[in-house]
Amino acid sequence: MTYITDETLEKIIKEDVPYLDLTTFIMGIGEHRGRIRFFGREAMVLCGSEEAARITGKLQLDVIKMLPSGTRTAPEEVFFEAQGSANDLHMFWKAVMNIFEYCSGIATRTRKLVDQATKVNPRISIVTTRKNFPGAKELSIKAVLCGGGLPHRLGLSETVLIFKQHRNFIGDEEQFLRLVPELKAKVCEKKILAEAESLDEALRFCKAGIDGVQFDKIAAADLQQYVQELRAINPKLVILAAGGIHENNIGEYAKTGIDAIVTTAVYFGKPADIGCRMEMDN
Amino acid sequence: MTYITDETLEKIIKEDVPYLDLTTFIMGIGEHRGRIRFFGREAMVLCGSEEAARITGKLQLDVIKMLPSGTRTAPEEVFFEAQGSANDLHMFWKAVMNIFEYCSGIATRTRKLVDQATKVNPRISIVTTRKNFPGAKELSIKAVLCGGGLPHRLGLSETVLIFKQHRNFIGDEEQFLRLVPELKAKVCEKKILAEAESLDEALRFCKAGIDGVQFDKIAAADLQQYVQELRAINPKLVILAAGGIHENNIGEYAKTGIDAIVTTAVYFGKPADIGCRMEMDN
Amino acid sequence: MTYITDETLEKIIKEDVPYLDLTTFIMGIGEHRGRIRFFGREAMVLCGSEEAARITGKLQLDVIKMLPSGTRTAPEEVFFEAQGSANDLHMFWKAVMNIFEYCSGIATRTRKLVDQATKVNPRISIVTTRKNFPGAKELSIKAVLCGGGLPHRLGLSETVLIFKQHRNFIGDEEQFLRLVPELKAKVCEKKILAEAESLDEALRFCKAGIDGVQFDKIAAADLQQYVQELRAINPKLVILAAGGIHENNIGEYAKTGIDAIVTTAVYFGKPADIGCRMEMDN
Amino acid sequence: MTYITDETLEKIIKEDVPYLDLTTFIMGIGEHRGRIRFFGREAMVLCGSEEAARITGKLQLDVIKMLPSGTRTAPEEVFFEAQGSANDLHMFWKAVMNIFEYCSGIATRTRKLVDQATKVNPRISIVTTRKNFPGAKELSIKAVLCGGGLPHRLGLSETVLIFKQHRNFIGDEEQFLRLVPELKAKVCEKKILAEAESLDEALRFCKAGIDGVQFDKIAAADLQQYVQELRAINPKLVILAAGGIHENNIGEYAKTGIDAIVTTAVYFGKPADIGCRMEMDN
Amino acid sequence: MTYITDETLEKIIKEDVPYLDLTTFIMGIGEHRGRIRFFGREAMVLCGSEEAARITGKLQLDVIKMLPSGTRTAPEEVFFEAQGSANDLHMFWKAVMNIFEYCSGIATRTRKLVDQATKVNPRISIVTTRKNFPGAKELSIKAVLCGGGLPHRLGLSETVLIFKQHRNFIGDEEQFLRLVPELKAKVCEKKILAEAESLDEALRFCKAGIDGVQFDKIAAADLQQYVQELRAINPKLVILAAGGIHENNIGEYAKTGIDAIVTTAVYFGKPADIGCRMEMDN
Amino acid sequence: MTYITDETLEKIIKEDVPYLDLTTFIMGIGEHRGRIRFFGREAMVLCGSEEAARITGKLQLDVIKMLPSGTRTAPEEVFFEAQGSANDLHMFWKAVMNIFEYCSGIATRTRKLVDQATKVNPRISIVTTRKNFPGAKELSIKAVLCGGGLPHRLGLSETVLIFKQHRNFIGDEEQFLRLVPELKAKVCEKKILAEAESLDEALRFCKAGIDGVQFDKIAAADLQQYVQELRAINPKLVILAAGGIHENNIGEYAKTGIDAIVTTAVYFGKPADIGCRMEMDN
Repeated sequence: MTYITDETLEKIIKEDVPYLDLTTFIMGIGEHRGRIRFFGREAMVLCGSEEAARITGKLQLDVIKMLPSGTRTAPEEVFFEAQGSANDLHMFWKAVMNIFEYCSGIATRTRKLVDQATKVNPRISIVTTRKNFPGAKELSIKAVLCGGGLPHRLGLSETVLIFKQHRNFIGDEEQFLRLVPELKAKVCEKKILAEAESLDEALRFCKAGIDGVQFDKIAAADLQQYVQELRAINPKLVILAAGGIHENNIGEYAKTGIDAIVTTAVYFGKPADIGCRMEMDN
Repeated sequence: MTYITDETLEKIIKEDVPYLDLTTFIMGIGEHRGRIRFFGREAMVLCGSEEAARITGKLQLDVIKMLPSGTRTAPEEVFFEAQGSANDLHMFWKAVMNIFEYCSGIATRTRKLVDQATKVNPRISIVTTRKNFPGAKELSIKAVLCGGGLPHRLGLSETVLIFKQHRNFIGDEEQFLRLVPELKAKVCEKKILAEAESLDEALRFCKAGIDGVQFDKIAAADLQQYVQELRAINPKLVILAAGGIHENNIGEYAKTGIDAIVTTAVYFGKPADIGCRMEMDN
Repeated sequence: MTYITDETLEKIIKEDVPYLDLTTFIMGIGEHRGRIRFFGREAMVLCGSEEAARITGKLQLDVIKMLPSGTRTAPEEVFFEAQGSANDLHMFWKAVMNIFEYCSGIATRTRKLVDQATKVNPRISIVTTRKNFPGAKELSIKAVLCGGGLPHRLGLSETVLIFKQHRNFIGDEEQFLRLVPELKAKVCEKKILAEAESLDEALRFCKAGIDGVQFDKIAAADLQQYVQELRAINPKLVILAAGGIHENNIGEYAKTGIDAIVTTAVYFGKPADIGCRMEMDN
Repeated sequence: MTYITDETLEKIIKEDVPYLDLTTFIMGIGEHRGRIRFFGREAMVLCGSEEAARITGKLQLDVIKMLPSGTRTAPEEVFFEAQGSANDLHMFWKAVMNIFEYCSGIATRTRKLVDQATKVNPRISIVTTRKNFPGAKELSIKAVLCGGGLPHRLGLSETVLIFKQHRNFIGDEEQFLRLVPELKAKVCEKKILAEAESLDEALRFCKAGIDGVQFDKIAAADLQQYVQELRAINPKLVILAAGGIHENNIGEYAKTGIDAIVTTAVYFGKPADIGCRMEMDN
Repeated sequence: MTYITDETLEKIIKEDVPYLDLTTFIMGIGEHRGRIRFFGREAMVLCGSEEAARITGKLQLDVIKMLPSGTRTAPEEVFFEAQGSANDLHMFWKAVMNIFEYCSGIATRTRKLVDQATKVNPRISIVTTRKNFPGAKELSIKAVLCGGGLPHRLGLSETVLIFKQHRNFIGDEEQFLRLVPELKAKVCEKKILAEAESLDEALRFCKAGIDGVQFDKIAAADLQQYVQELRAINPKLVILAAGGIHENNIGEYAKTGIDAIVTTAVYFGKPADIGCRMEMDN
Repeated sequence: MTYITDETLEKIIKEDVPYLDLTTFIMGIGEHRGRIRFFGREAMVLCGSEEAARITGKLQLDVIKMLPSGTRTAPEEVFFEAQGSANDLHMFWKAVMNIFEYCSGIATRTRKLVDQATKVNPRISIVTTRKNFPGAKELSIKAVLCGGGLPHRLGLSETVLIFKQHRNFIGDEEQFLRLVPELKAKVCEKKILAEAESLDEALRFCKAGIDGVQFDKIAAADLQQYVQELRAINPKLVILAAGGIHENNIGEYAKTGIDAIVTTAVYFGKPADIGCRMEMDN
């Protein structure tokens, strides 16, 4: 569903195998034929098999089996299998393992948050921040999508989210609030969102016509009340919550009536625990 | 101490700011002058300031203050400060924040492992696997170095580490053991290491002349005994341990007499908690 | 206000000067010192001087004078001047001329549309489609911004605009209309826009809760009526018009009450007519 | 007939689809199968189908029909058809449309000039300047070739064309004229051309042994006389005319006896008017 | 056995064929079908056929015959044959010829050294320095491997070789020698090598515990004695010789008992003498 | 006089120093200050100092002294000196040494050929083929220019040279000869050259109107006669000779009256013998 460039894939290969697998080479086993199989050690949401398949194409391997990204795989279920020379299999192994582990880790964590939240509130969105590992956005976003999430903002150029750090350049709040209608006109196709540091601030933003507010690190119980007070002014106000929301408390947040939960945590937890068997063909 | 390419830095900027900060642009604040300050919310080992400084150069910002990567910073200590237009500051902000957070996170976690381990055994090395986020090795390695660690293997092309997955292409163990002297001659400048799955296997490798063995997921107590038995055969045998070693038990591992501890965990914990203030100049 | 990568600038230089200016080289004039001056032959909105300045840095030239992108320049007004060796000046000349001509052309056309439209309706936006020259979006977008326009959509990944070509995959319109609330929940931070082929269709979209409609090739007079009927249902409905709108009729469109005018034409008219003097220093 | 790099094609895709088609994704139609057909709304010279075909390969689409670049297509004639998932079709659509529109536009305009000119003078060449959109030379040149034109100069490194801007570094004309034989020896494999600002100047160049002269913005009637006077001195002198030559007057220029007409205009007229139908498979 | 990136291959094509083969184009022969055959004029070790095959894929050619890199080919033996249009064949010709010639040249020279040396001492390694043509390491290393050699050091980041230029930053030799055990602990997985300028120096290094020494420009006869004296101290000491070793004297060096011979010369001798026939299909 | 891209320079650095100089790092000398000096061990024509200077900028080094590319340097003359930390100096050392050695080698060999040939015939050109190391054309061409040579053809796209391999697609020679006037018209700005395999063939080409012929591997004595016979037909015919021409016989070739000598040999001889001193500052 996303396009990962060849440049990205080649970079990943080259970081792991700048020239050759020296071990395979000196052992003289490079031309022996074999196969590689990847499986999760736990239930997980798979991500990365399309990229693995494209890398087989670069390394003269043949794909024997492949489940699509987004599949929920059972423990020990082989989700990717390829065949070829020991040389190519060893160049493939860890670079691709790394893709599977990091991407499936992100996808699985996202999926858990989405499942927990939508159980309580089927219409709530789980959206992820721009805080992916620097330089690694392509795979990170694919993994989020595979897990049922969506990016909050991909970058700064197509959405509007006003932080205190923007308002600091504008003078007092009064001036900012008067600016809102103009902002809405300038980018009429987009919603204008702002981060609010308190309910009071949010109420003022709301009255000034802002389309949505984002709260950071507000307890779920407080948030529920914020939602009520804000929706009393504008029933269509978009309300997002970020900060300190995790698998264990996401249900409570989902119940508050907010529209979306913004999370960074899915990006940096443990990679999925994936096993790999590589064997010589008889 | 490492060279991060301009290509990498430009990619990081462009992922976050493909064209402009739309919010700054429509607010009409782009030309206002201000400054940005980064500080850790906790004690940490800083990493990324040289890259931040190079990015200021691309964005017409001036560096006011900058501590070098590797510095241990105190909570709230400003380690990087720059000055310029709101437009450039906002393009700079999160892309650079991300570098600081991920890299300082890795550096800090590495530092902690190094400190804990060397307190017990000053000569032990903490070395990191190739399991960095795919496509993001440059920053990951810099962060490891800043934390006092070293890469275990940067890639497959300059070191020899024989896995079961290699030996599977060779027939029985007997054949493999007979191959060892030949391998040593072929790459006489390098040590030949192998992953051993048991003490018995390691003993056989050792007798066959292998330079080092790597164990995975062995309890520290058992490992201590392995070391004694192996060193009885070859006092110079390099012994490494990987798997399940963390801040809390690394001291025990360091005591076993092994030469190095191989870790992946530093790559994927939480980013450092870094704050940022951005204000307009008066 | 935007960041153009070094990679883009180097590509532009290399396309024009793969290795050397052969003419300068064989004439033996390469080391002679001189200066180059660029000026418009007509009034125009300048775009590209920041890029020109960065290219001087790559070619050992010194900037003597430079007006910022976005400046309205008078006929014959020198807006960029640099100094250096004949060799470097000749490598600089046409590559940079091309940037100035194409970008200022786009900026000037955009500016004219914006001026004409906002004279009539100060709150209307002029937004440009994704139909820039393929592979040349960075400079194209910068030029649009310099001319007072904004990109309609930078790409497909951060905004929602439903075309007939999307709806064709969904069955009948009934089904699509029932889907609208779900779409709004999924991307609660964004407005959902759809292209409407007729007023009737637009009215149905509007009733189903869509945030905005885009019309293509509707006469201004008809459009005015559409706006009234649609706003009667949803006063906040965003209405955009595209197709066949140009400098001469944009005022009429601006009067209709629509929010934004979508245009492609600014991308492909004539480059600005720019002159260049290059002379040897005495 | 030219090789467009994968890097160029990936850039074009990524500019339009950085990650996904969000609209398709949230509508949940991504896996539905369909097909896309492109056709011109007017007669045109097609350009870009080989690139479209290569992009289908990157996006898992199958080519059903494809006419080669250079084909003259009739209005409404489908020249490219592909099949696959809605997701891939939508990622393909506009990026490829843009290639077809811009490239076919250039090819068609070039073809018209070539046809008009060669009707009058079958041996005349239509050659295009280096003033393509900056950074977009690969597609621009392909389009020119498809239209029957040739590039005047691809860049500065392999041909010699002496402008006033070169001669300004040399002192008086006398000195320059004395230099000509040396230039001819230095690059004996190439013709030495110079831009002449008047007939008198051209006559002096011609006598000095220059191989060709290029005139800018000379009326066709005057040019005819220039040709006669110049050819009286050197019957083999290459004579080119540039500036202000277009579809309506090119015939007059072709009649003057010049060897080639240099044009920029083909690069920046309107894109070809191309339609696209995308439908779900039954 | 190594992975050469598409980026490298595209660069090689584009350096030779930036846009088209103008000669083929103007002759109007582009669509004629033909075939190309490459053969060595002398016996040689082939290198580059996998890259040639990948380039056929980019240029719409079909591979008819292809021997793998590393094959010893007889004079006049056709080792690569492809079929397609004259246009594609001519774009393919010289770019690929160049790969074959340079890479097979390196492979053949390496093979000769390896054969001469291992005839005398079957366990000796021939390893090549980092002095390949700047920017061309991928193909250079592949060629060395195809010739039976190995890279001495691929780069500076994964091996330790201490030059005088390092020791100059450390004070007197005494200090350096005391540092050796610490270096060995820091990179316990690697051998510590140093360049020694004399036997005396080497003896001191050896006593200090260094794993290997490299000598530069020592006569074979002297070297033999060095080996004996050094091995008397440490029988496992790795000893390498570089400088002034060539096809004619390598046997003498191989006899000295050293472990490896370090050579640069294979990189820059004459390209292999390769012929090419290109003919039209009947 | 040529522009080498940052991408090229970064690739050269990264090939040699993917991450760090491990040796410097573990020795703990990285922060010590020192300087590096490069000098030739023989008289030579320097090439590469501008690139070295740009690399100092990337590595935080300061240039102390630098002679421009093209300078004839005396043995032991320091032509480049830089200052900075041991860490940066060691990252700089060999990557830059390699540039100096290869480029100065090419420049020096070219210079020798040029000097020998022009001593006999001051108007003769020494031009180099496209057979540079694949992927390394930028530096190769710069070096040729620094040595007083010129590229014969940079690539296939801007010059016309008809090989037998082209004519094979055309039928009999008669047909080819009849095509010549048309070719001349099509690319009126360029000379049409063809490789001739014998004097007879060349005479027929000459009569058909070809602008130049290139001979391969003809003895100088024969060539002299060819020149006379051909010039009798067309005194302006361009005549080039390639194949087997070297420093020792180039004078004889220069005397034959040909216009240019085409050579490949300058690309692949020995790198210049360059020394380097690196010392700690007191």
